[in-house]
Amino acid sequence: MKDQASVLRETDGEARKLARTLLRSARYAAIAVLDPESGFPFSSRVLLGTDIDGVPVILVSGLSTHTRALDADRRASLLTGEPGKGDPLAHARLTTQCLAEPVERDTDVHARIRGRFLSRHSKAKLYVDFPDFRFFRLVPQSASLNGGFGRAYVLDGEDLMIRSSGNEALAARADAIVLNLIETDSDLARRAAGAKAEKRIDWRICGLDCAGIDVISGDFLVRYEFDEVAEGVEGACSHISNIKYAIPEI
Amino acid sequence: MKDQASVLRETDGEARKLARTLLRSARYAAIAVLDPESGFPFSSRVLLGTDIDGVPVILVSGLSTHTRALDADRRASLLTGEPGKGDPLAHARLTTQCLAEPVERDTDVHARIRGRFLSRHSKAKLYVDFPDFRFFRLVPQSASLNGGFGRAYVLDGEDLMIRSSGNEALAARADAIVLNLIETDSDLARRAAGAKAEKRIDWRICGLDCAGIDVISGDFLVRYEFDEVAEGVEGACSHISNIKYAIPEI
Repeated sequence: MKDQASVLRETDGEARKLARTLLRSARYAAIAVLDPESGFPFSSRVLLGTDIDGVPVILVSGLSTHTRALDADRRASLLTGEPGKGDPLAHARLTTQCLAEPVERDTDVHARIRGRFLSRHSKAKLYVDFPDFRFFRLVPQSASLNGGFGRAYVLDGEDLMIRSSGNEALAARADAIVLNLIETDSDLARRAAGAKAEKRIDWRICGLDCAGIDVISGDFLVRYEFDEVAEGVEGACSHISNIKYAIPEI
Repeated sequence: MKDQASVLRETDGEARKLARTLLRSARYAAIAVLDPESGFPFSSRVLLGTDIDGVPVILVSGLSTHTRALDADRRASLLTGEPGKGDPLAHARLTTQCLAEPVERDTDVHARIRGRFLSRHSKAKLYVDFPDFRFFRLVPQSASLNGGFGRAYVLDGEDLMIRSSGNEALAARADAIVLNLIETDSDLARRAAGAKAEKRIDWRICGLDCAGIDVISGDFLVRYEFDEVAEGVEGACSHISNIKYAIPEI
């Protein structure tokens, strides 16, 4: 990337937050892998989730080209950030370079990933347990953020990870916490969606980690990032309680 | 692909037409290339056009990773077919494996591609002539069509090409033909968009070749494929005149 120095901007907190949000709010991505038969790059579409440490997760069929490719070569690239109206290149997008790790069935990690994935993609319940379907964790190694014309940034893989001593504890209690949040504050998910909640209904929390929460309305997913990463369950709940006042009541 | 035989369907005319439409109606694509520095696949977004022979065309900055990658290795993969509402994997998409050919400036081919590209992407006028911006033709070698769950097809690169003796003649006269069409039948573009024209206005023709026409309304592009490839200008005009009666007046 050295020869790009003149167009690259210095990676600041705002760029990192935008990159995290693009990765964590993507329901799907274009994945690029290396086709083991031809050596060509191969681009296809995958559903995307995240693990408790922010690592993107895919659920794929063993019959697909991308799965056979990842079995032969772990290197993969994810494009997230969908264009809205107008010029597609004016919309921010993120390329994340990853190393794929297969997730073994009948493990705690698999159960955690499965639960988080189905909270986000409820229709995947139909096939998640088929014998040929598998999860991969795609561990970020580096990333390129394009925030629109002339706004390019390079990130480390670490910038996209959630490093918190509270990850395991939060994962273990996430379902109970979400249930409790719904009971005590039924409007929380809508407020977390902020301005994007407009004209959409039936918001629900579909993900919770030490860096933020994911809320969804139909097929529209929004990521709410905390101001800082929580170091435990109490910290995460404290950040969530702040959402109550982050956006004024309409 | 041999081990995929059980999930692959026989590639028929309907599958080929869907594949062509997915490629020719895409305003943008996810491109996958081989990063020359890391060997990783690299996924990013590009604006897409087509040449007169159906070959997809991209306009890229020499400063971008994908351009430097294509200079080092011609192999590329294009993902087209955007998900609408609902399950992203229920929407048809096409992976096209291509070999990139740089388009030399100050040639007839460059002028033809430039004109066609700007008809589709009018905002690209702002930078198309910048010295670091270049066109590549991405010549299809093979393709994988995923028409939704359990509907997978393999195609030859040739299936996506427009092989007509009339290509050159039509390219030379396309602008004049489109002008004439607009004068004689101002409603043609809307009718070509068919059912997709609903609730959108200001349809215009933004592309014409021996296999069909492209029409656009704002940032919504529709491909109308002729029933068969025309072998000359007259044949193409005859197919276009059929559009007049293909869709009943509302």
